[in-house]
Amino acid sequence: MSFSRGLCTVSRLAKRGFNGYRRLPSRDHRFPALIQTDFAGPPQTEQLDPFSLVADELSVLANRLRSMVIAEVPKLASAAEYFFKMGVEGKRFRPTVLLLMASALHVPLPEPTDVSLGNAVSSELRTRQQCIAEITEMIHVASLLHDDVLDDADTRRGIGSLNFVMGNKLAVLAGDFLLSRACVALASLKNTEVVSLLATVVEHLVTGETMQMTTSSDQRSSMEYYMQKTYYKTASLISNSSKAIAILAGQTTEVAVLAYEYGRNLGLAFQLMDDILDFTGTSASLGKGSLSDIRHGIVTAPILFAMEEFPQLRTVVDRGFDDPANVDLALEYLGRSHGIQRSRELAKKHAELAAKAIDSLPESDDEDVQRSRRALIDLTHIVITRNK
Amino acid sequence: MSFSRGLCTVSRLAKRGFNGYRRLPSRDHRFPALIQTDFAGPPQTEQLDPFSLVADELSVLANRLRSMVIAEVPKLASAAEYFFKMGVEGKRFRPTVLLLMASALHVPLPEPTDVSLGNAVSSELRTRQQCIAEITEMIHVASLLHDDVLDDADTRRGIGSLNFVMGNKLAVLAGDFLLSRACVALASLKNTEVVSLLATVVEHLVTGETMQMTTSSDQRSSMEYYMQKTYYKTASLISNSSKAIAILAGQTTEVAVLAYEYGRNLGLAFQLMDDILDFTGTSASLGKGSLSDIRHGIVTAPILFAMEEFPQLRTVVDRGFDDPANVDLALEYLGRSHGIQRSRELAKKHAELAAKAIDSLPESDDEDVQRSRRALIDLTHIVITRNK
Repeated sequence: MSFSRGLCTVSRLAKRGFNGYRRLPSRDHRFPALIQTDFAGPPQTEQLDPFSLVADELSVLANRLRSMVIAEVPKLASAAEYFFKMGVEGKRFRPTVLLLMASALHVPLPEPTDVSLGNAVSSELRTRQQCIAEITEMIHVASLLHDDVLDDADTRRGIGSLNFVMGNKLAVLAGDFLLSRACVALASLKNTEVVSLLATVVEHLVTGETMQMTTSSDQRSSMEYYMQKTYYKTASLISNSSKAIAILAGQTTEVAVLAYEYGRNLGLAFQLMDDILDFTGTSASLGKGSLSDIRHGIVTAPILFAMEEFPQLRTVVDRGFDDPANVDLALEYLGRSHGIQRSRELAKKHAELAAKAIDSLPESDDEDVQRSRRALIDLTHIVITRNK
Repeated sequence: MSFSRGLCTVSRLAKRGFNGYRRLPSRDHRFPALIQTDFAGPPQTEQLDPFSLVADELSVLANRLRSMVIAEVPKLASAAEYFFKMGVEGKRFRPTVLLLMASALHVPLPEPTDVSLGNAVSSELRTRQQCIAEITEMIHVASLLHDDVLDDADTRRGIGSLNFVMGNKLAVLAGDFLLSRACVALASLKNTEVVSLLATVVEHLVTGETMQMTTSSDQRSSMEYYMQKTYYKTASLISNSSKAIAILAGQTTEVAVLAYEYGRNLGLAFQLMDDILDFTGTSASLGKGSLSDIRHGIVTAPILFAMEEFPQLRTVVDRGFDDPANVDLALEYLGRSHGIQRSRELAKKHAELAAKAIDSLPESDDEDVQRSRRALIDLTHIVITRNK
């Protein structure tokens, strides 16, 4: 259920020697390199590794994050830094999107401008946008810490969850601490619209989690409820932080809305794929995933679409999934339905809408801007083609 | 351990028609009654019921708070509003202090000013200051919700704690929700210094709670550590929100610091008294309190002072208080020491420092301002003479 999952297909492609014409620095080749596309064809889509484009900046950001979460009290310090330590920072999907968005919306200062002054302004803006990326990660990790307490989870990012390792109390406190640090960092940006946007995200994360925890039978069988919950739990953070990037850059409302729409649709596509992969795992066959959602009684898009074809599936859903036989029965219905396929189509639709938002941005001749926009569009493909 | 404890005598007095003008401090009375003093004498200390001065405004504020914490999802809504419902709002000590501080720092607009314009400006400022009082309550209640989860508490304000009634999960989520609403409300004030101040308070609350939870033997026996923890857990919120009241009013740094110092010293005095009452309860005799702190292994001022007289008490403290015999032994040492008396003196010292901060404010001829300042000073007496 996390953005940080499932992006390693990219690394596998990279290992195969996926090589192209404008390879950008990619230290360990974990992510796909640029591909030489067919220049004879219609509009070129130069494909590049979205992650490598911002790799250096992500390292700087990771270091800064580690210094931002230092707490005075040793126990709180270890708890708060837990998921910011080298090696367990996750794939940093959100910061990648946000830094690319920052570049994609870059407006070079009009000539004639004193170059050094222009650079200083650009660099100050970039620092503020990096701060949004850092705040977004802090809010994300805070929500993971609290979610893991709520779900009694024992692992996260391949290591023990914080609640498992240091206990529920410290996990709750560390989450609160990260939220307060995020709020302090937000305040330092001195832009109250941005503070308000990101504070609302925290509210959305809580709302989404509560919606998932406390469903009536009707709600559990409603696609609308599912999509709303998905927006709150997954898409709100990336959409509103993308919007914040645009606002800090002083972009028009239209551009800010496009940045928001990109994030929203990318987030929804991501979560839909996550929910499909919970059934299929790395292969495309049903039942190969972890089945973690359904076993926890969480009903997602594939089952909801299957229910439209087989209304009798609803009684199975209503019985809950404590009984493994019931899980098998639901999987049987799902296998006979177009549930997986329709979920993929919906994910694809949202990925396309995300790409369309980028295409709708005001035109730019700037090469860096163009490259970043292509990278954002590439991310929409990566999200829906990933298989783990 | 909460500000809302122990002030109900005031409301009882108020119900009895506590509406007079002047009172004299008297240790024998729970709360000194108002007495009309002789106007012919030297500088009068007009004493009055601080709570009744802002009673009407507190009702408005309570209603607004209820509307501010409305959540979309029903379960979250009931959880979030739990401690804002009529009858369980607590004694609203913090809002009372903050509204009085707002009046105490009121600077009438210089003549000639268009009266209606002046009134509009005053009224807008007051609304913003009320908002600080509301945010402060939200942060306070959020911290209570999480603290009760951490402490496995089953009651609060005379009703079941939220975690007891609706479960830990909803209590954690409701706390997060209140923090996010507080942050949204903060952002709406469009003053980043104030956002930063109150976000730092959340960090302090978490830090204080962690300090209390994870003490080494040396820390548990250190008065300095105890006072630092007490500042974080209790005094930071009221001091920084008092400062925020001054900042919103556009006061000088000096005045903002005095507002902060008032809150800090009042908060420390309050908590010291709370810690004494945990031993003595309503009577003045040792062991008549709930002994809740010591039974939870929390070492407070009376024991720390006693330890200075009887260093051998430290080994008792180090053994912990799971064994009731150990509690009795500690009480015995405490009884033979001046621990309670010295704690009272320390509380008194902080109450006096709080009063001094008010006395150091720039002079004002305005009667409302003077009355509010006297009420703030009266609160310092109330805090140290309360016996429950």
